[in-house]
Amino acid sequence: MSEVYAARRARLRERCAAGGSEAALVSGDANVRYLSGGAPAGAVLLVGPDRDLLVCTADPYADATGRSRPGEDVQVEVLTAPDGDPAVAAAERAGAAGARSLAVEEHHLTVSRHRALRSVAPGLRLGDLGPAVEQQRVVKDDEEISCLRIAAEIADQALGELLESILVGRTERHLALELERRLVDHGAGGPAFPTSVGAGPNSGLAGHVPTDRRVEEGDFLSVCLGADYRGYRSEIGRTFVIGTSPADWQIELYDQVFAAQRAGREALAPGTAYRDVDRAARVVLEAAGLAEHTGPRMGHGVGLENDEDPRLAPSAMGKLDACVPVTVDPGVHLPGRGGVRIDDTLVVRPEADGGPELLTITTKELLAL
Amino acid sequence: MSEVYAARRARLRERCAAGGSEAALVSGDANVRYLSGGAPAGAVLLVGPDRDLLVCTADPYADATGRSRPGEDVQVEVLTAPDGDPAVAAAERAGAAGARSLAVEEHHLTVSRHRALRSVAPGLRLGDLGPAVEQQRVVKDDEEISCLRIAAEIADQALGELLESILVGRTERHLALELERRLVDHGAGGPAFPTSVGAGPNSGLAGHVPTDRRVEEGDFLSVCLGADYRGYRSEIGRTFVIGTSPADWQIELYDQVFAAQRAGREALAPGTAYRDVDRAARVVLEAAGLAEHTGPRMGHGVGLENDEDPRLAPSAMGKLDACVPVTVDPGVHLPGRGGVRIDDTLVVRPEADGGPELLTITTKELLAL
Repeated sequence: MSEVYAARRARLRERCAAGGSEAALVSGDANVRYLSGGAPAGAVLLVGPDRDLLVCTADPYADATGRSRPGEDVQVEVLTAPDGDPAVAAAERAGAAGARSLAVEEHHLTVSRHRALRSVAPGLRLGDLGPAVEQQRVVKDDEEISCLRIAAEIADQALGELLESILVGRTERHLALELERRLVDHGAGGPAFPTSVGAGPNSGLAGHVPTDRRVEEGDFLSVCLGADYRGYRSEIGRTFVIGTSPADWQIELYDQVFAAQRAGREALAPGTAYRDVDRAARVVLEAAGLAEHTGPRMGHGVGLENDEDPRLAPSAMGKLDACVPVTVDPGVHLPGRGGVRIDDTLVVRPEADGGPELLTITTKELLAL
Repeated sequence: MSEVYAARRARLRERCAAGGSEAALVSGDANVRYLSGGAPAGAVLLVGPDRDLLVCTADPYADATGRSRPGEDVQVEVLTAPDGDPAVAAAERAGAAGARSLAVEEHHLTVSRHRALRSVAPGLRLGDLGPAVEQQRVVKDDEEISCLRIAAEIADQALGELLESILVGRTERHLALELERRLVDHGAGGPAFPTSVGAGPNSGLAGHVPTDRRVEEGDFLSVCLGADYRGYRSEIGRTFVIGTSPADWQIELYDQVFAAQRAGREALAPGTAYRDVDRAARVVLEAAGLAEHTGPRMGHGVGLENDEDPRLAPSAMGKLDACVPVTVDPGVHLPGRGGVRIDDTLVVRPEADGGPELLTITTKELLAL
C-alpha cells in the first residue's frame, strides 16, 4: 500500500522540480493524507529532494483508528513544544537540510504562518505550490473508487432504512441524527458532511441546517447525506413527498429537477468541459423558468473531501477525465413553499465502458411516504 | 439585542482607529458572528468608519435556524458571483468608500486571499488586525454566560442518561452517537465538538476519535462531550470504571488526576496568570511521576468556539479576568493500559462572589458502572 503514497509524492517531487523548487511543504489536511497515507489533523508534509518528513503535534500512532498512520517510508517528527507550528518546524528542517527554495500552499497557509516560515528560514526562497496536490487528487485510482463505492452503498442503506420508518411528526434534526447513526451502523467512519434534512418550506435548500421543524402531511422532504469510508466521502440527495398523493405543483417541480439532474448525469463523459455539465442541467431549469431559484453550480468532485475539484459551475475551467468521481446535484427552492434536490455520486467513465458509473443507486422516482 | 453587537463593533472601531486603520475586515467565522449577531459560514464583516457591512455568498435570511441572521443595523450584501470571495468584495467596497487603510485578520486570511485583496484595492494600505476580536471575546457578558450555563446543563443531562444505560458490549462509536443524539434531545443545536469516547486502552486520550472497540468489564471509560446552545459551547469530561470494583491502579490514577483537576479549579481567580493554573494542576501530576503521560495544557477558554483564548498552558501569557469561562481538563494516558480525564467548564469569579462558578455539575467521584 505504502508504495502508492510514495508514487504520489514522486509525482509531486517532479512537479516541484519542474517549478524550480527543491522541496514542497504540504499543509492542506486532505493533501497531507493523500500523500502520506494518513496523518493527524494539523500535520504537514515536507516533500524534500531526498527524504519526506511528516511533522505533527500529535503522535500518529496514538490514534487507535489507524487513520493517522503514515506509510513506513515517511519519517515522522512529533513536536514536543505544545504550541509549535508543524509548518514552521518543517521549514526549519528544510532550511537545515540545505534546501534553498520551498514551495508552500499559499491557499492553505495564513499570512501569519507564512511570515513565521520566512523568519525561521530566511535563507529559504518561498514559492507557491498552488493547488498542485488538489489537481493530482482529481483522477482517482481503483482503490480510491472502491472506497467511494462502499461509502455510497452505506449511504444508500442508511437512507433506505429511514424510508421504512414513520416520518410524520419527527423533527428535521432527529431524522438527520438517525441517518448519521445508521451510517455508522453500516460501517461508516462517520458522516461525510453534516447531514441535511429539510421539511416543507425548508426542502430543496442546499446545505440546510436541520431545525426543530416537524415533518407534516403534504410536505416535500429533502435529505442529503453521505458516508465517510476510509476517508472517502460519498454524497446522495433525495426528495420525497409526505402523505398519500403529491400535489400537482410538487409533481411538476419534481419532474423538472429530475429532468435537469438526468441531463447533468448524461453530460458526464471524458473530455466534457466542467461548465458544460452545469449548463446541461441548468438549461432545463431555465427553460422551466426556475433559473433564479437554483444554485450556483450543479455538482462537484468528491474524494478525501466532500467538496473538492472539479466544480461543475458556469465559470469552471477544465474538462472531465475518466475515473473522476463527481456529484450531480441540482436543486430548486421556492421561498415559502419548499423545493426539490436530487443528488447522485457518479464516476466518469468512457462510453466504451458503459458511460458514467452511478454509485448511489437509491431510486429517484417520486416516492410518497 | 442588536445594540449589544453595535457596542462590540464600536469597541473594535476604536481599537482600529487607535491602530491607525480606518476600517477592519473581520473574516474569522466566530469573530464575524460575535460582532454581527449571526452570519452564514464564510461571511466577512467590514467594520468601517461610517457603516458596517456583512458580505456573504449565502442569504442570511434563508437559514431557517435564524443563526445566520445579523442585527438589523448591519448592511448585508449577498454575492451573486458563485465563486466570489466575500473578503475580496468587502475590500473593494472599502476602497470604493474611500478608505485608505484596512486592518485584516492575517491569522485567518490565507496568503492567496490576501494577495487577491491587494489586487482589487491597490490604493488600500492593508494592516494586521491581529487577534483583536478574539481578545474582545475573552470576557463574556451575562447573556453569553447564561447560554454557556444552559449548554453545560444540557451536557450534564445527556451524560446522566448515558450512565443509567447498559454500557458493556457497546462500541465507543455508538456511545458517542447516542450522547450526541441526547444533546439534541435536550435542546442543543448540536454537539459543541466531536464527542470523544475512549474505552480500555483508549481511555484518557485527549480528543480520541471513537472506534469500534467495545466496552468491557474492568475498562476505564472516558467520555468528553459538550453542547452547542445558541452558538456557545460547553465541555465536560468524565472517566468511569466498568464493573463492580475498580483495580487498585485505577483508583490510584483516578485520585491523582482528580487532585490535579481540583488544584486547577482552585487556582481559578481574577488576576491569576494563565500559566499558573496549568502549573497548579501539572505539579500534582509531576509529583505523581506522570509528567510525561499528560498533555501540553490543562485547560482552555470556551465560548463561540470550543477551544478559544485563553490557553491554560506553560507558555501562555496573560492573567485571568472575572467572567472568563474556561475548562480545567487534565488527563493522563498510560500507553497500552488507558487513563483518566476529568474536565469541567467553569466561569472565573472573584472570591467575594464565591469563587469559580462550576457549570458542569456531574459528579466527579469515581463511579463503577
